Amino acid sequence: MGKNIFFKQKGPYLLSEIFDSFQLKKKIKIFDIKPLNEASKFDITFLDSIDYLDYAKTTKASCCITTEKLKIHLPNSCFPITVKNVLFELCNVARKFYPDADIDIPDFSLRKPAKSKYPKVRFGNNVLVGKNCKIGKNTLIGSNTIIEHDVVIGENCMIGSQIVLKNSIIGNEVVIQDGCKIGLKGFGFIPLKDKNLRFPHIGKVILKDNSELGANCTIDRGSIGDTIIGKNSFLDNQVHMAHNVKIGNNCMIAGQVGFAGSSTIGDNVSIGGQAGISGHLKIGNNVKIGGGSGVVKNIPDKTVVMGYPAVPLKEFLKNTKKK
Amino acid sequence: MGKNIFFKQKGPYLLSEIFDSFQLKKKIKIFDIKPLNEASKFDITFLDSIDYLDYAKTTKASCCITTEKLKIHLPNSCFPITVKNVLFELCNVARKFYPDADIDIPDFSLRKPAKSKYPKVRFGNNVLVGKNCKIGKNTLIGSNTIIEHDVVIGENCMIGSQIVLKNSIIGNEVVIQDGCKIGLKGFGFIPLKDKNLRFPHIGKVILKDNSELGANCTIDRGSIGDTIIGKNSFLDNQVHMAHNVKIGNNCMIAGQVGFAGSSTIGDNVSIGGQAGISGHLKIGNNVKIGGGSGVVKNIPDKTVVMGYPAVPLKEFLKNTKKK
Amino acid sequence: MGKNIFFKQKGPYLLSEIFDSFQLKKKIKIFDIKPLNEASKFDITFLDSIDYLDYAKTTKASCCITTEKLKIHLPNSCFPITVKNVLFELCNVARKFYPDADIDIPDFSLRKPAKSKYPKVRFGNNVLVGKNCKIGKNTLIGSNTIIEHDVVIGENCMIGSQIVLKNSIIGNEVVIQDGCKIGLKGFGFIPLKDKNLRFPHIGKVILKDNSELGANCTIDRGSIGDTIIGKNSFLDNQVHMAHNVKIGNNCMIAGQVGFAGSSTIGDNVSIGGQAGISGHLKIGNNVKIGGGSGVVKNIPDKTVVMGYPAVPLKEFLKNTKKK
Repeated sequence: MGKNIFFKQKGPYLLSEIFDSFQLKKKIKIFDIKPLNEASKFDITFLDSIDYLDYAKTTKASCCITTEKLKIHLPNSCFPITVKNVLFELCNVARKFYPDADIDIPDFSLRKPAKSKYPKVRFGNNVLVGKNCKIGKNTLIGSNTIIEHDVVIGENCMIGSQIVLKNSIIGNEVVIQDGCKIGLKGFGFIPLKDKNLRFPHIGKVILKDNSELGANCTIDRGSIGDTIIGKNSFLDNQVHMAHNVKIGNNCMIAGQVGFAGSSTIGDNVSIGGQAGISGHLKIGNNVKIGGGSGVVKNIPDKTVVMGYPAVPLKEFLKNTKKK
Repeated sequence: MGKNIFFKQKGPYLLSEIFDSFQLKKKIKIFDIKPLNEASKFDITFLDSIDYLDYAKTTKASCCITTEKLKIHLPNSCFPITVKNVLFELCNVARKFYPDADIDIPDFSLRKPAKSKYPKVRFGNNVLVGKNCKIGKNTLIGSNTIIEHDVVIGENCMIGSQIVLKNSIIGNEVVIQDGCKIGLKGFGFIPLKDKNLRFPHIGKVILKDNSELGANCTIDRGSIGDTIIGKNSFLDNQVHMAHNVKIGNNCMIAGQVGFAGSSTIGDNVSIGGQAGISGHLKIGNNVKIGGGSGVVKNIPDKTVVMGYPAVPLKEFLKNTKKK
Repeated sequence: MGKNIFFKQKGPYLLSEIFDSFQLKKKIKIFDIKPLNEASKFDITFLDSIDYLDYAKTTKASCCITTEKLKIHLPNSCFPITVKNVLFELCNVARKFYPDADIDIPDFSLRKPAKSKYPKVRFGNNVLVGKNCKIGKNTLIGSNTIIEHDVVIGENCMIGSQIVLKNSIIGNEVVIQDGCKIGLKGFGFIPLKDKNLRFPHIGKVILKDNSELGANCTIDRGSIGDTIIGKNSFLDNQVHMAHNVKIGNNCMIAGQVGFAGSSTIGDNVSIGGQAGISGHLKIGNNVKIGGGSGVVKNIPDKTVVMGYPAVPLKEFLKNTKKK
């Protein structure tokens, strides 16, 4: 039930304050908004796809925005709020709790870092650091880099030049190369004519120990939930990770790979250059994805795939031959 | 007949001054160089492809660089200058009118913006602004961002950090995320051995109200004519738009999409991640283009396409099954 | 036998100091580590693929890390050091000679450039230049650009804004557009559980006269050997070049193209947008590669290819029709 450290949070609200039409006997008090598997009894959650039934069955949330059709998958302890458009209602609830998380307002608390505050950190020229940042000892920060408020960086990291880092928790011995933009809001909105409704991005980016990012990567923070790169996973230049993507440990992601939102990648996965991974997929452990592939389906453990759409390698080679 | 606000313009010239070999009875005075559909009687224009016959028939230009074959499509009011290589001759004429538009010389008029000049704008640290810029009230500009001379930005915009913005007109409530490079010259040149001849880029970038760009996008300005993003169209991270591309209203363009030069995209178009759109195409309204597709042909309204090369979705699914 | 100008170099070492297990009669003294075709008798080299037999046969290196199988291709003058994992052993040797080249430590010698030192160079605001840089006359450098120690830039260059330039030798009349990151270490490491072993990148980037890079490109330096762009070759925006890639003269590389490591591209090659070139390939002269192609094989001179995987254009068109 920890407070969100990056975004100003409102509430708690009674469920009846959020959804006027729900006149409940029991008063449900809601403190925050969380994904199915991270929610506690103080949180509201959401279910909008059969892909997440396993999480639905065991959620601890006290209530869940969902559809008439999906609500049967929720446990008795979770009160279903049935709506037509789950994401639209979720967006409105998220905006009620987090009114400032839909647009990345630049951090105007940025200052030249005081030596006294970071005695064991080495900064290049013109580095700007926001309020309440923590930076571990022996970490190096290159010139013109911006570290916005409340960011946490571990020890022995090498953060390059001309980077923007916000809404992020960085482990130890992490390497980030020049020009990366990390922790920005993702591409999430309800498309409405004349004026789209932006989805608040209240999650963060977590880079675990020994991970590495190449130059000019863009790693968006999570919308509800986090974007995560596991231990000892290395990304090459110009990789794009959308909101909520989770990459496991010991992965190798080559240049210009793109991840659409909310996919989960296992451990020991290698992905060739320019491959694309569609949204909401589950890629197993020890998977190899060939360069330029377009992955549109879940991939089980220990599979080698290639092609557009990506298929098991044998099949790809057979198809290529047949032509 | 308004002057180009971004580039130093020479002329007017008599047509005979531009093309020595044309000894005309009538003296034609030329003030500027414009695309077929934007030219007035004071302008020279060009026609090098049958794709633009509709525009050719109704052009108001007083003269047009074209080929022997295409000249019959011009109205009588438009004097044809027939040449072998339209783009080569056009390039030379453009260089005569605009000697400084072929290379992006950095703006050495950049200064820290004076509070007195922009009282209602909030600037981060180390922002640099050139001469004659206009920035609307309540607009926020992130740290280390560069706004070159004569750029116009509307009200209530959120311009992030580490951005370069030049030769651009930005509407109201526009969001530009960190690291974008906007208004730079495009990839246009006459290939010549040992030393290519760069094409002047005398157009601009226009971002209309409520549009949004993700992080690290590159939006080149127009060569002759403008690059335009319509109202309420949202682009995700790392999108590349080449010179003269025009995107309509209410479009959704996912991450790492690339547009080659001079294509026109309708309204309400959605394009999946990593798709590529070839040059000089016309994509209709309400079109959906699947992620990773390679579009090489015009697409009519309300069509869903996918694949490389992109074909209607049904056909794509049939082909994929057949394998 | 020139010293590496960008990286602190240790040695010379006796071969027996590097490989304890080799008890040689003759003492071999090694000064540096070089690719097969660039090595002199003072250097150690490596051979790990039959793709490089031509270079192996004529190498002048005094010793070579290789496999039991490949060692027969080396000349008598070159002592073979047979190992199981060539790259792992090579990595360790490279780390012994160059202990600081595996991570890009930011250059803390950066300073505002003194007018007296660069009297004929024009700098924008907040430019930072490291020790021992050379910048030719009439070169322009845009604002917020970082030029790290020992970089050499020729005359009449246009270096844009928000660029990072390190470990590079830039010719005359080179154009680099805003946001490029050049000379960073590449994506090279020995994958090890929990902590990958980074490969030192001791090479540089060489941009020859009249070459041009579009916005937000990433050009990694060589690991052993250099990354090179030839004369009058132009790259569009967001191109990614991995370590050791060599592009010839008069090439045209469109937006978002990606090159995996160590491929060699001939002269007069044109590559369409978003194409990908796999690693260790040889692309001939006068080759044309269609947009979006995935090149996985060598391509002979004067060939036009397209597709994923890329095949000669005729074949691609036939396959597309057949569907």
